[in-house]
Amino acid sequence: MENPESQELEVVLANEGFYRAFESLNIREMEQVWATDRAVKCVHPGWELRSGWPDVRDSWVSIFNNTRKIKFEVSQVDTVINQAFAWVTCTEHVTAVMDGEAQTFQILATNLYLKRESRWLMVHHHGSPVLGRLPVEKGPA
Amino acid sequence: MENPESQELEVVLANEGFYRAFESLNIREMEQVWATDRAVKCVHPGWELRSGWPDVRDSWVSIFNNTRKIKFEVSQVDTVINQAFAWVTCTEHVTAVMDGEAQTFQILATNLYLKRESRWLMVHHHGSPVLGRLPVEKGPA
Repeated sequence: MENPESQELEVVLANEGFYRAFESLNIREMEQVWATDRAVKCVHPGWELRSGWPDVRDSWVSIFNNTRKIKFEVSQVDTVINQAFAWVTCTEHVTAVMDGEAQTFQILATNLYLKRESRWLMVHHHGSPVLGRLPVEKGPA
Repeated sequence: MENPESQELEVVLANEGFYRAFESLNIREMEQVWATDRAVKCVHPGWELRSGWPDVRDSWVSIFNNTRKIKFEVSQVDTVINQAFAWVTCTEHVTAVMDGEAQTFQILATNLYLKRESRWLMVHHHGSPVLGRLPVEKGPA
């Protein structure tokens, strides 16, 4: 049984690995960090759910094909581990060149990892844009 | 040890319970379905992360105060259970009267539940708007 600190470090490193794979814009790098089975899912900001590795993989290929360069600064990384399951939330500060235009934006992400044969593999990524407020919100509560 | 089918049914019922609590627009109902501790988190569509029950609770109070009526049809419910941890994705078809105006929209949700003393309690809700396409996407992949 590993100690909790080393488990958490493993998950934090897996989460960093996901963003390095994203920055690489290389589908083979991205494939390394996912569980690549039927149970995996992915929600890109504003997109519909992608379910199962082939469909999730296609979504990454589509993003990589339309992105010339992307950099992530990831903050507020919070990790909860329950047995072989890890739940991570973080804020992505993204700088990207997409469709020939430089953009910066913030994304809130929920990332789930499953430990298999001593490796933490991504099983779910849910990213959503931070717009500052929801239509129903009058202001900060 | 419970059988997998009854575990899954429990989680599906917990997820339905969350949407019934949301429809009630009553913070006491919502409080019943959450783990109400420091580890819970919530991302409402477009909002920043709310962390810890007091902050998550405030966000619900803010939404409930600005919503006169809300109804959910929930589809594509998919459940993965790993020990005492459950990960649910679903599509919310929402009809709401907010700020005096009727609206319909779709939200993609990632809902996480933890089993405590035989009850599945929500520990994380991440909802994001389905916009149809992401700025970087050229079209369906």
